[in-house]
Amino acid sequence: MGRILQFMTAGESHGAYMSAILQGVPSGLAIDHAFIKGELARRQQGYGRGGRQKIEQDEVALTAGLYQGKTIGAPIAFLLANKDVKIDKLPQLFRPRPGHADLAGCLKYDQGIREILERASARETVMRVSVGALAKLFLKEFGIEIISHVVQIGSVRLEEKELSFHDIVKGVKGSEVNCICEKTSRKMMAEIDQALKDRNTRGGVFEVRAKGIPVGLGSHVHYERKLDARIAMGLISLQSVKAVEFGLGHRLAATPGLKAHDEIAHQKNKGYYHLTNRAGGIEGGMSNGEEIVVSATMKPISTLRQPLKSVNMKTKEVERADFERSDICAVPAGGVIGEAIVAFELADAFLEKFGGDSLNETKRHYDQYLKYLSKR
Amino acid sequence: MGRILQFMTAGESHGAYMSAILQGVPSGLAIDHAFIKGELARRQQGYGRGGRQKIEQDEVALTAGLYQGKTIGAPIAFLLANKDVKIDKLPQLFRPRPGHADLAGCLKYDQGIREILERASARETVMRVSVGALAKLFLKEFGIEIISHVVQIGSVRLEEKELSFHDIVKGVKGSEVNCICEKTSRKMMAEIDQALKDRNTRGGVFEVRAKGIPVGLGSHVHYERKLDARIAMGLISLQSVKAVEFGLGHRLAATPGLKAHDEIAHQKNKGYYHLTNRAGGIEGGMSNGEEIVVSATMKPISTLRQPLKSVNMKTKEVERADFERSDICAVPAGGVIGEAIVAFELADAFLEKFGGDSLNETKRHYDQYLKYLSKR
Amino acid sequence: MGRILQFMTAGESHGAYMSAILQGVPSGLAIDHAFIKGELARRQQGYGRGGRQKIEQDEVALTAGLYQGKTIGAPIAFLLANKDVKIDKLPQLFRPRPGHADLAGCLKYDQGIREILERASARETVMRVSVGALAKLFLKEFGIEIISHVVQIGSVRLEEKELSFHDIVKGVKGSEVNCICEKTSRKMMAEIDQALKDRNTRGGVFEVRAKGIPVGLGSHVHYERKLDARIAMGLISLQSVKAVEFGLGHRLAATPGLKAHDEIAHQKNKGYYHLTNRAGGIEGGMSNGEEIVVSATMKPISTLRQPLKSVNMKTKEVERADFERSDICAVPAGGVIGEAIVAFELADAFLEKFGGDSLNETKRHYDQYLKYLSKR
Amino acid sequence: MGRILQFMTAGESHGAYMSAILQGVPSGLAIDHAFIKGELARRQQGYGRGGRQKIEQDEVALTAGLYQGKTIGAPIAFLLANKDVKIDKLPQLFRPRPGHADLAGCLKYDQGIREILERASARETVMRVSVGALAKLFLKEFGIEIISHVVQIGSVRLEEKELSFHDIVKGVKGSEVNCICEKTSRKMMAEIDQALKDRNTRGGVFEVRAKGIPVGLGSHVHYERKLDARIAMGLISLQSVKAVEFGLGHRLAATPGLKAHDEIAHQKNKGYYHLTNRAGGIEGGMSNGEEIVVSATMKPISTLRQPLKSVNMKTKEVERADFERSDICAVPAGGVIGEAIVAFELADAFLEKFGGDSLNETKRHYDQYLKYLSKR
Repeated sequence: MGRILQFMTAGESHGAYMSAILQGVPSGLAIDHAFIKGELARRQQGYGRGGRQKIEQDEVALTAGLYQGKTIGAPIAFLLANKDVKIDKLPQLFRPRPGHADLAGCLKYDQGIREILERASARETVMRVSVGALAKLFLKEFGIEIISHVVQIGSVRLEEKELSFHDIVKGVKGSEVNCICEKTSRKMMAEIDQALKDRNTRGGVFEVRAKGIPVGLGSHVHYERKLDARIAMGLISLQSVKAVEFGLGHRLAATPGLKAHDEIAHQKNKGYYHLTNRAGGIEGGMSNGEEIVVSATMKPISTLRQPLKSVNMKTKEVERADFERSDICAVPAGGVIGEAIVAFELADAFLEKFGGDSLNETKRHYDQYLKYLSKR
Repeated sequence: MGRILQFMTAGESHGAYMSAILQGVPSGLAIDHAFIKGELARRQQGYGRGGRQKIEQDEVALTAGLYQGKTIGAPIAFLLANKDVKIDKLPQLFRPRPGHADLAGCLKYDQGIREILERASARETVMRVSVGALAKLFLKEFGIEIISHVVQIGSVRLEEKELSFHDIVKGVKGSEVNCICEKTSRKMMAEIDQALKDRNTRGGVFEVRAKGIPVGLGSHVHYERKLDARIAMGLISLQSVKAVEFGLGHRLAATPGLKAHDEIAHQKNKGYYHLTNRAGGIEGGMSNGEEIVVSATMKPISTLRQPLKSVNMKTKEVERADFERSDICAVPAGGVIGEAIVAFELADAFLEKFGGDSLNETKRHYDQYLKYLSKR
Repeated sequence: MGRILQFMTAGESHGAYMSAILQGVPSGLAIDHAFIKGELARRQQGYGRGGRQKIEQDEVALTAGLYQGKTIGAPIAFLLANKDVKIDKLPQLFRPRPGHADLAGCLKYDQGIREILERASARETVMRVSVGALAKLFLKEFGIEIISHVVQIGSVRLEEKELSFHDIVKGVKGSEVNCICEKTSRKMMAEIDQALKDRNTRGGVFEVRAKGIPVGLGSHVHYERKLDARIAMGLISLQSVKAVEFGLGHRLAATPGLKAHDEIAHQKNKGYYHLTNRAGGIEGGMSNGEEIVVSATMKPISTLRQPLKSVNMKTKEVERADFERSDICAVPAGGVIGEAIVAFELADAFLEKFGGDSLNETKRHYDQYLKYLSKR
Repeated sequence: MGRILQFMTAGESHGAYMSAILQGVPSGLAIDHAFIKGELARRQQGYGRGGRQKIEQDEVALTAGLYQGKTIGAPIAFLLANKDVKIDKLPQLFRPRPGHADLAGCLKYDQGIREILERASARETVMRVSVGALAKLFLKEFGIEIISHVVQIGSVRLEEKELSFHDIVKGVKGSEVNCICEKTSRKMMAEIDQALKDRNTRGGVFEVRAKGIPVGLGSHVHYERKLDARIAMGLISLQSVKAVEFGLGHRLAATPGLKAHDEIAHQKNKGYYHLTNRAGGIEGGMSNGEEIVVSATMKPISTLRQPLKSVNMKTKEVERADFERSDICAVPAGGVIGEAIVAFELADAFLEKFGGDSLNETKRHYDQYLKYLSKR
């Protein structure tokens, strides 16, 4: 949980409700319900999703923390009724699925597999997106925007080239895999089609970008306050994510020092800035004023139509793992959830720096900071 | 900070003392001072380090939390007197170094660069290693061991092959770059020599492994309790680390589902286990009983003998960045610190699961768990 | 929030829902819905309550964290639909009520009074009681029970004498003010009747007791881990509570040392115990094995039918404070909420000491501790 | 720990060092070492203290977090070398002292009594005072001052009357028991003399006041953010404190509603204020702009020259408790430590509301708030 913004989620995949409580949001923020609904819809899209996304058109209600459409400084509650409620009637499972929480979870908690997979399910991310949507609404008030795009699906990787934020906003329009290149999009979709045919699944890489970030969010003074550490924590905690990297990321291993850092410049009307952005906008655990660029690798979906070998926990015999309805590829959705995670961490770091109990107050503080920066 | 184990560090690179306080360690743990000293020495080693490592042979004192050589359940204080104390006499700097906390820090905190770099310095990691050494002593009581090795320095990468924990323990012996392959070690050292000649620096990749981990540390139930998320947070918070990956990591993007997960097996005397370890020992945010395998990419050292372009903050003129004494490559040391970070997170997750105020009590709980597991 | 058990609540007095999320409860705990409902009913009772308690017969749903009636280790969500939903239509207020959050809240949050009082309302305690009911169910598994009784209402104070837990359980039956003495109960009710007649309100004192507590919950090692500090925090955070005391409490100021402490004894079958319980069961921040006895003073209800002087915030003119429907005396209900608060803190401290992810595991750990204690 | 300011302490009564780390203090705060030293000296004073206070004239060093006498935003380390270092040579004890952590601690931690009492000792408060002194320096920059006075020692109680902050500052001068009334001071000292003669000890009550507090610190929105709850937590965590009350405190039980609250007024140049201060400056969990008034009851010192009955833990025989050097009465010192605790909590709540990484920035934010308030 953040230092100022804090949230908890609850809910099982086939339980009655998904819910979340978020506290620390200043008063006076107008809630754009259509925006939140839109974010949830974006999470459900993407070529290669399974049937469930069609069953549930998620719509979350904000059941606390508002008065006449605006936040009041109180905890905000999110509530979403699952349409497919049947948890208590679903059968127990005995063959843990490789790649899932099944085995470790049922041993840890002294439970059956059903009790584990219901909570471990990525259905929980509907609440992370809801919370993140609120964080985005807050950040928008300060000119901060966040976007994602898909960089790789299976063996198909977007050709590397410098992209502006605007290039991405524009480029992903119309792509069913949230990729900025039409040709690559088609190849990615073909890759997914192939996986479906092979009864296989695909992983990939998404990139999240945030622009309009002031210099100085996060801190170098203590490990747990570093902005990149907090974002990494959030992203790795997303189901299927196995790697996170900032800026050039793992490619920095092979880059010599002279080519690895971002030279500093200054212009009167612009203040300090960097000539490149290899660091992905974070140096010394702080935002450095450039766009934040972070990417995450998702392993392929673990639930397979051609199940892997497992063990029947009752008999200890080798058997194929159980199968639960699932997607072929969820990387585009992963990007949307990744945006929400990054939004939450940025909003928390923003409030940690600027304080303020009302949007008005936080804005006063922020404006003063911009004035101060213009004099440094 | 962890849920049970919590620590804070303090100290500047040229200040009087580095210090830390760690709380939550059960009573009755015997402190092996030579082991702690050895860990600090390991942190100082590695081909490509600068002059400072020779000035200071770090020796930390444990100044609280012990009685007759054993922990008493009270907070443990670590204290290390810097030998090179001169912070108040060191000159102010005006040309922020690209890749460092300098610019963002001095703008955020309304300070000069000196005030920032003194705390942002990786000298702080001497405390993380101290805390981690204690965590290792605790884990050792339960048969858990942690090691690291260097996988890449600059463009030289260790050839990929399956390695046992023992292979690594044995392999790194005698290597000045903590690499298991003699030939690759030599190439890595040549790479560092070249960088020195070019007045350049090198980054790389280290891998940390932990063995003897019981199934079920961490949890799938809430994002912030996931073991991989907590380890990622710790590692990204380490100076220079820009990417973290578990198991096959970013290579999982291109791996199809059928080859990406770890099939499950069972043997009477061994219980459940996996046929492979692509996940790096963590599934669903929990340890799955296999070795934990995590690697981190360090960018090349940001302080360059051929300084990059920067801006003089007094005049706003373009100038070369300031230079502070520094290393050429710190990846082997990074691995040692990475071990400490992983040790802390594992010890915290271990205590979260098993509880116990004394080592005796934690051991009773652990033994009961092993008995229970043998019946599942 | 606790270290292991953590909860958040959300909801406004006239909003759509009250809700809470509780995490950290082990798996395998059977939920007794009737018990939870009963606790909520107890909270609504008590002589001197206003009309609202009759409108709403609170019934909370557990919407997440269960499978077939038992906990699964996942966060538990509580949901209660308010019957009197009209927050957005309620008029704004301009005359802050003395004794309430109104003035400070609307200045702090840059809001009107309505936005503040809706969240500051003691209606929120319906969630604290829900969470506490779950904590009680957990504690019951270990033989821990919690009760409260009313010691004072207005100027009527229960005569002081030693009471056993059983005396209280038995004594309060049938009392509309939850007082163990029939005669005192009648006087208390007369005091409330008088207050109603005078268009006045009454405060008082309730005492909470917990029995069956093992020695060693909480800790002396750090201020924030002290059991009494955590309980005090919880109780003072309850609306209207202005004082908290343990055991003899403020009377210890005038008690000389020789009469202020509890002598220690030992019996083979019973282990260590104390000859008296002036400390209220907590020494050095830890449970000492005796009953925990804590009492809290509630100020009289701040909403008065004869409103106090205030200021019209639009005109700055002196005017009488606004009036919202309210109770005359809520001390008996305060006791019920106090039980819930104490239950939560005890359950958290219990899990901190014993760990365990399933009820089975926590029980194993607890049994081992009892065995160990019997040998000391 | 606070949300923004966080500290840990470590150290045993006869260990090598007492230490603390405090993080979250903004940069640019000038450290007045003489002030800190003075606070530590105040903690050592008071009629009725034992011999140890003469052995150690405590002087704490700030070993991290400063550059040229000012804070830099980094964690601040406090270090104090004990003069009486002999922990490892002190004998084990077997007869737990009633009123102490001895029995519960050694059972909980599976240790001897020595290991427990060394950490449970009020010697730890030297660090709480150090941390609090820093908090006071911070608050002073915003015109906030904190003071304490002794209201009761044993059966001697200061006559109740309204006191201004200034009355207290002036009144306590020269009193060896930190009491504002000369005559009462003499009686209190006589009470202590009597206790010494009787080989007995005395408790009492101290009151802490804070003035200059802006309206709106703390919050009504969530139980754990309430300012009074946080202060109560801090004070009850102080050794010997068994009761805490705000404003009229436990006397509010018998006060009817019409006399229990503080009517509200407004003046152009002063803004909103209250006609009385029965609430002790906190309503709805927030500072209301009036002085904060909180008092705490300390039980008499538990270590008695006429030891109470205990049990020899080796033989289980009834024996008198062990005796360790101790004071007769520590209430005046308690008040000084109470000030430090209140200072910490106020500084944390202040930073939570106003944010800011440098003193300059926090001041800008605060000034803006005052301007805003003047318009409400």
